[in-house]
Amino acid sequence: MGQMKGKASIEFDNPPVIISAGAVVGRKEGQGPLGALFDQVEQDDMFGKDNWEQAESAMQKQTADLVIEKGGIRKGDLRYLFAGDLLGQLIATSFGTVDLEIPLFGLYGACSTMGEAMSLGAMAVNAGYAKQVMSMASSHFATAEKQFRFPLGYGNQRPLSATWTVTGCGAVVLAGDRKSGMAKITGITTGRMVDMGAKDSMNMGAAMAPAAFHTIEQNLEDFQINESYYDQIITGDLGEVGRRILLEFMKNKGHDLEPILMDCGIEIYDKEQQDTHAGGSGCGCSAVTFCSYILPKVQSGTWKRVLFVPTGALLSTVSFNEGETIPGIAHAVMIEHIE
Amino acid sequence: MGQMKGKASIEFDNPPVIISAGAVVGRKEGQGPLGALFDQVEQDDMFGKDNWEQAESAMQKQTADLVIEKGGIRKGDLRYLFAGDLLGQLIATSFGTVDLEIPLFGLYGACSTMGEAMSLGAMAVNAGYAKQVMSMASSHFATAEKQFRFPLGYGNQRPLSATWTVTGCGAVVLAGDRKSGMAKITGITTGRMVDMGAKDSMNMGAAMAPAAFHTIEQNLEDFQINESYYDQIITGDLGEVGRRILLEFMKNKGHDLEPILMDCGIEIYDKEQQDTHAGGSGCGCSAVTFCSYILPKVQSGTWKRVLFVPTGALLSTVSFNEGETIPGIAHAVMIEHIE
Repeated sequence: MGQMKGKASIEFDNPPVIISAGAVVGRKEGQGPLGALFDQVEQDDMFGKDNWEQAESAMQKQTADLVIEKGGIRKGDLRYLFAGDLLGQLIATSFGTVDLEIPLFGLYGACSTMGEAMSLGAMAVNAGYAKQVMSMASSHFATAEKQFRFPLGYGNQRPLSATWTVTGCGAVVLAGDRKSGMAKITGITTGRMVDMGAKDSMNMGAAMAPAAFHTIEQNLEDFQINESYYDQIITGDLGEVGRRILLEFMKNKGHDLEPILMDCGIEIYDKEQQDTHAGGSGCGCSAVTFCSYILPKVQSGTWKRVLFVPTGALLSTVSFNEGETIPGIAHAVMIEHIE
Repeated sequence: MGQMKGKASIEFDNPPVIISAGAVVGRKEGQGPLGALFDQVEQDDMFGKDNWEQAESAMQKQTADLVIEKGGIRKGDLRYLFAGDLLGQLIATSFGTVDLEIPLFGLYGACSTMGEAMSLGAMAVNAGYAKQVMSMASSHFATAEKQFRFPLGYGNQRPLSATWTVTGCGAVVLAGDRKSGMAKITGITTGRMVDMGAKDSMNMGAAMAPAAFHTIEQNLEDFQINESYYDQIITGDLGEVGRRILLEFMKNKGHDLEPILMDCGIEIYDKEQQDTHAGGSGCGCSAVTFCSYILPKVQSGTWKRVLFVPTGALLSTVSFNEGETIPGIAHAVMIEHIE
């Protein structure tokens, strides 16, 4: 049973353990600063398929298979799959997971999906609903650009506040068994929709920063802790612009996050060399950075406690074209080193 | 703690109780056979808004407010919201729930979303993660047609196998407290993606029937029961065509579902008078039929035990135009009368 904490959090009595994790990324991500850390870097962004959507589905399948093999897991032992992507009607996930034959909870939290998937996965394992579950999220630069922005061939100019959608898929397997040198999920704080009126789809960091602020504040309040509790607080894909806004918001509340705030979107690309402007984004951004960079640091004990906060901007081409705002959401997952 | 049953099911130790439920529908649904049962029938399908998407969001907000008021619930007591709709990037839910200020798990299960939302909501309440949660799903004829098919003004002809997307939103509040004359959720069976190669978006019943079959079979197997355990087995929106396929599949496995199989899509419209062809569909179809027709019958004890199985067809315009198949998914929820 989980213990309710404060207004929007749960502290797990039997913190689920991350027993396997892996990430598959595209070529550009492989050329970035974290390139050497990913399990697989696919040189062909089509993943050998006929179209971009099939490519993203193939990437999900490849990631799930990798994580199963890496962890020495029997596919039949995975009781539930919590997964999602950015595409309309989750088609990357639908086609990517059909061969796995695992009961599926399809999720949509925009780029916060890995946080949502890990939260629900941990809730299921802690409650004894499953011995093992998989949480997974993906995005693909080409499917996202095609869906949200312009045809790639059009070659539109991107403002400096724009982010670059990560081609990547990350997945973890959560289980009840704990071993020394692993990482566990001790708690979660679930975000709500936050709409501050941002309208620029080329500046999603600004749209998501208020949601990240709200969820991090709620986490500190619900657990009656301050930021020094964590070695790192890691947002999903705020990028340079969103990061500055979040720091400012937190500072106004008396929290100095500067020394411990990291953003997956900033880490994943080399801004100067890779022309990615404000940073990386997409569900895959936080998912692959978590699996390949953050998790190993928690496993090794470099970081004892981190707060992982994937952030999502809720827009569609329809809502954008109708002049709507872009609400944000952020889901926080508390990850701790097991001594 | 929930008890794992078989391969894909959970039996709840403390079955969550449905303490409030309500449905808001559009004009056409109000004119159908269940018209008098809905809490609110809106004569203006625009819900007083400027576009269809805003209308669907307004309908969600209206439904949530109604269910909160009807149940004498304090909004602050609702710890989590499990909700979704059919639109790309869940925009009906994003904008519809922002004012509720409740931590949100955004879900996408196509028309099976109400089953997914009730499953996860019940899992959360049973595990002690929340005292009260809301599960909600909506669809709107005009947003769905605009997104999946043709502009309304084009006036395309619809084949007899096509279904009519329900304009409606249904929501329930689940809690731990039980009272005589209410209904409880005793268990769930979570579906997986099932792809039998169906490709016709004007015949989604055929695409979903194999998934419904798979989930119902799994439920009977996991709980070691046969169909006579239930007074009714109720699918979401198979329509006339999908229903026939499901009956045939079940018959081949030795189960005669004919006397107890009901389909929300068939119940909600008068086929002859309303020109709806194979029946109703959309997340809202099973959600409003559940809240207004099925639930009262379980509360009154007319039906002691029902299996509610919302069904979803996973397609997007992109996947359809790329010639992909339409995988299906179905999530089963076991509902029981409380003496």
